[in-house]
Amino acid sequence: MSERITIALDAMGGDRAPDMVVKGANIALQRFPQAEFLLFGAESRIEPLLAKLPRLKARATIRHTDEAISGDAKPTVALRTGRRSSMRLAIDAVAAGEAHCIVSAGNTGALMAMAKFALRMLPGIDRPAMASFFPTRRGESVMLDLGANIECDAENLTQFALMGEVFARTVLGLLNPTVGLLNVGSEELKGNEAVRGAALRLRAPGSGIRFHGFVEGDDIAAGTVDVVVTDGFTGNVAVKTAEGTARLFSDFLRGAFRHSLTARVGYIFAQPALRKLRERLDPRRYNGAVLLGLDGICVKSHGGSDTLAFANAIGVAVDMEVNGFLDQIRSGLARISILPRPQDKPQSAAL
Amino acid sequence: MSERITIALDAMGGDRAPDMVVKGANIALQRFPQAEFLLFGAESRIEPLLAKLPRLKARATIRHTDEAISGDAKPTVALRTGRRSSMRLAIDAVAAGEAHCIVSAGNTGALMAMAKFALRMLPGIDRPAMASFFPTRRGESVMLDLGANIECDAENLTQFALMGEVFARTVLGLLNPTVGLLNVGSEELKGNEAVRGAALRLRAPGSGIRFHGFVEGDDIAAGTVDVVVTDGFTGNVAVKTAEGTARLFSDFLRGAFRHSLTARVGYIFAQPALRKLRERLDPRRYNGAVLLGLDGICVKSHGGSDTLAFANAIGVAVDMEVNGFLDQIRSGLARISILPRPQDKPQSAAL
Repeated sequence: MSERITIALDAMGGDRAPDMVVKGANIALQRFPQAEFLLFGAESRIEPLLAKLPRLKARATIRHTDEAISGDAKPTVALRTGRRSSMRLAIDAVAAGEAHCIVSAGNTGALMAMAKFALRMLPGIDRPAMASFFPTRRGESVMLDLGANIECDAENLTQFALMGEVFARTVLGLLNPTVGLLNVGSEELKGNEAVRGAALRLRAPGSGIRFHGFVEGDDIAAGTVDVVVTDGFTGNVAVKTAEGTARLFSDFLRGAFRHSLTARVGYIFAQPALRKLRERLDPRRYNGAVLLGLDGICVKSHGGSDTLAFANAIGVAVDMEVNGFLDQIRSGLARISILPRPQDKPQSAAL
Repeated sequence: MSERITIALDAMGGDRAPDMVVKGANIALQRFPQAEFLLFGAESRIEPLLAKLPRLKARATIRHTDEAISGDAKPTVALRTGRRSSMRLAIDAVAAGEAHCIVSAGNTGALMAMAKFALRMLPGIDRPAMASFFPTRRGESVMLDLGANIECDAENLTQFALMGEVFARTVLGLLNPTVGLLNVGSEELKGNEAVRGAALRLRAPGSGIRFHGFVEGDDIAAGTVDVVVTDGFTGNVAVKTAEGTARLFSDFLRGAFRHSLTARVGYIFAQPALRKLRERLDPRRYNGAVLLGLDGICVKSHGGSDTLAFANAIGVAVDMEVNGFLDQIRSGLARISILPRPQDKPQSAAL
């Protein structure tokens, strides 16, 4: 029997919590029989849900708390006043070594602030980044940062590249993933200082990273590289733009099929194929944004997650734990330390 | 009979030039009978094309030059050495008052540099911006900047908002267009200094702009606002991400219809509807990125433009001229001058 994995769940985070959290855990347990759950939240609401799921109940422990972080709480306020919240206690369980990973569909900013505070950063990483994977023409790719850092310098982007590369290896199972820096053109002189500086460092011999160079917005869906690295402002806009475009396309497609009687007939025949397409692009499959750079595994499920989406977010956390993500990052950091860091630069005054 | 409009065309710019330029002009002439063309480029190549189109020939003048700007020429080099190029001479025709507008499918950077130099900026605008319109759930919207300015401050974004608003009124024919600033969230505190500063100014009474506030990536395709304002880095990534996602979706859809025999049957019935969808999303319909902020009308057609796409780019230029875009911008600038500008701030040393 494989080793047990203990997963701390913020049972009160997300629009449909705690219902979808408990049911999501139940699906995850079918996929990962080695899973055990710590459910943080209101016992009176969680217990009745568990009662209906005896298999899960046998593998779950409720850790009661009355407090929860609201969706619109400011991160700083959540950090100061939310010490007894379901989110914070779930994170603390990882910090204390009671759980291997934490999954929450709650307030993103609060989760980031609390996780950064309680789990701390990995030595050598300055800022956490939010990463997610998504469908491309060639399979799946990873993109980061998706919004944790509005402004990034070359050093941040270089660290994101390393973290994204390790994530692609451990979670997507890619052997030697390629990394690209998102830019407005592929030529060396394009872009701002941060991307040009990061490119210089990633190109340096000894980076240990298969650096493709600059990529553009259309390379994301094309799957030109396995890991797309960008600052949190651009990454957030890009991922939401892609979501919005996919939704527009679906709407237009639906409209087209309603357009005439023949189109409706066509729809009936095409339905199974269209269902496959929908499944392939189902955002629930790609749920689970990961906070990378922390000394602990922390996965953010979409606030609007349903049961299946939440189960997938748990799956991402389990994959990271099973594949030794944190150890891989640590050895990757040993690699990246051979790259010049700003503080290593000779001071001109000292010359 | 309506007033004549003279359009200067860079006949040598674009992958399929001069063929698609001349044929595109011919289509545009059918739509705009008041059009006249100045065709800049190699007479030996343009003349045989014109010979086959007698109606166009009667309304077109060839201005011969042997020189053309190559697709990979650096803007500074093009500016210095390209004074006799087809692109530059076409721009010069607008600067000299011989033509009302210029359209080129050539090198974007070179076009921007040359147009900025020869046409000059409108007084009150610091930097040109590249704008384009695109399909949304609610109709069509405008986005800028799409890559002319990698880094922008609050003042630049405010000016872009004004220019985009006038563009939406004059070219899309919207009476009172709404303007949104692209950001990573809709709350006031989100984003970097530039977007927060621009939001403050656009919210100020007297801006004369119907400012919606911040919008996110998925608002672009949703058509939440008529004008999406952003810096050139984010805008370029967003527009290319949307293109890439649409292409991915089309590919997956095509794959789904090939998936089984029933799906193929469905495709046959659905074909007319799908053709309509394709037409609705046809990128050629949305061809023609406009350089705003110049004291002259300059439209950039996609480098890969075909005849129809190039004709649409000419259409954008004609619409701008017919609807008095430049005058509208000038009166808009009078409005925006009531907003505080950095140089108007009291100097602390002088207090």
